[in-house]
Amino acid sequence: MALPGPFERLIGLLKRLPGVGEKSARRMAFFVFQAPEGYSIELADAFLSLKKNLSVCEICGNLTDRQPCNICSDPLRDRSTLCVVEGIEDLLSIEQAGVYDGLYYVLGGTVSPLDGEDLPEGSLDGLINMIERGRVSEVIVATNPRVEGDMTYHAVLSALKGMSDLKKSRLSYGLPVGGSIEFADRVTLHAAMETRIFVSGED
Amino acid sequence: MALPGPFERLIGLLKRLPGVGEKSARRMAFFVFQAPEGYSIELADAFLSLKKNLSVCEICGNLTDRQPCNICSDPLRDRSTLCVVEGIEDLLSIEQAGVYDGLYYVLGGTVSPLDGEDLPEGSLDGLINMIERGRVSEVIVATNPRVEGDMTYHAVLSALKGMSDLKKSRLSYGLPVGGSIEFADRVTLHAAMETRIFVSGED
Ligand SMILES: [Zn+2]
Ligand SMILES: [Zn+2]
Repeated sequence: MALPGPFERLIGLLKRLPGVGEKSARRMAFFVFQAPEGYSIELADAFLSLKKNLSVCEICGNLTDRQPCNICSDPLRDRSTLCVVEGIEDLLSIEQAGVYDGLYYVLGGTVSPLDGEDLPEGSLDGLINMIERGRVSEVIVATNPRVEGDMTYHAVLSALKGMSDLKKSRLSYGLPVGGSIEFADRVTLHAAMETRIFVSGED
Repeated sequence: MALPGPFERLIGLLKRLPGVGEKSARRMAFFVFQAPEGYSIELADAFLSLKKNLSVCEICGNLTDRQPCNICSDPLRDRSTLCVVEGIEDLLSIEQAGVYDGLYYVLGGTVSPLDGEDLPEGSLDGLINMIERGRVSEVIVATNPRVEGDMTYHAVLSALKGMSDLKKSRLSYGLPVGGSIEFADRVTLHAAMETRIFVSGED
């Protein structure tokens, strides 16, 4: 039997979401069908509002509904420390863990050895801009513990090579190697932040 | 940090869905933010359309966008067999498994011994209606293998007590095919032992 069209259609769309398979999409659609109509109306509106009202911070690349973002404009954050991450997901995970109160810079990608791809065009310019215009004294390179992350770490370091007053560090490998920051638990993230390795010279 | 309002709002709504926690809601919202706008527009519309265009079949209780539903109006289905299920989820699972081609009747609930609750008002009337108006010769009571399901099974049976020409059956309980004795719980093992199949001759 084909399920009714509106049901199949919603399931098809839900299955595109990360981590959602046929069965869970079906359960979700069914839940929505049984919930009060207000819930679908709110959900529909929230999806539309996400694309309409959210953008990317022009300074740091964070997800935001204003320019600059909450973090860049927060006077209570430590403006001497800059944490460089691959993507917004990583920034969100570190924020959720509550283990860091400096600024961020989102690269928006990694060096990709297999595709022969470099960091996204201009992504290091924005980083250097933040360092030069601000009063950053330490850059923590918080890339993921994978080949791409390591290569990205080295690409960032080499872009900062001339800045000898700048402390450079990376997260320590308390992170499960082969895993990702996004799925790390709070304690692991905290440990990785605490035991970050300071980098001297040309490493 | 509080995440931007539109992001938090969507996450809050997504977390109400079955099987969706904080992290997966965040990943979903983030996916939607990064996907082309057409996706959120489609998704929003699909949620609204679900409530607008779907209802419950007036004959059998199935989810449908027409009256009567696909199954009730399908001339190729075996109209002599009626499968009674607790809820639409069960109907959908049996349909997806493709192991049955008769009609259904959805009770829309179970007998609930702890709450002292009976089957939903009038749900047995609809069942008797289907049997009397149709040419049903067998009723399969496919309730879930739990206390509620068993009590519901007995409630259905006693409602059909007068109909002596009608065959009545229930799904067999036993080991899940592909599963193992090692991991089967005690109750399942007991059921599998009690309803063991006697083998005659050379089989
Ligand atoms: Zn920012
Ligand atoms: Zn029907």
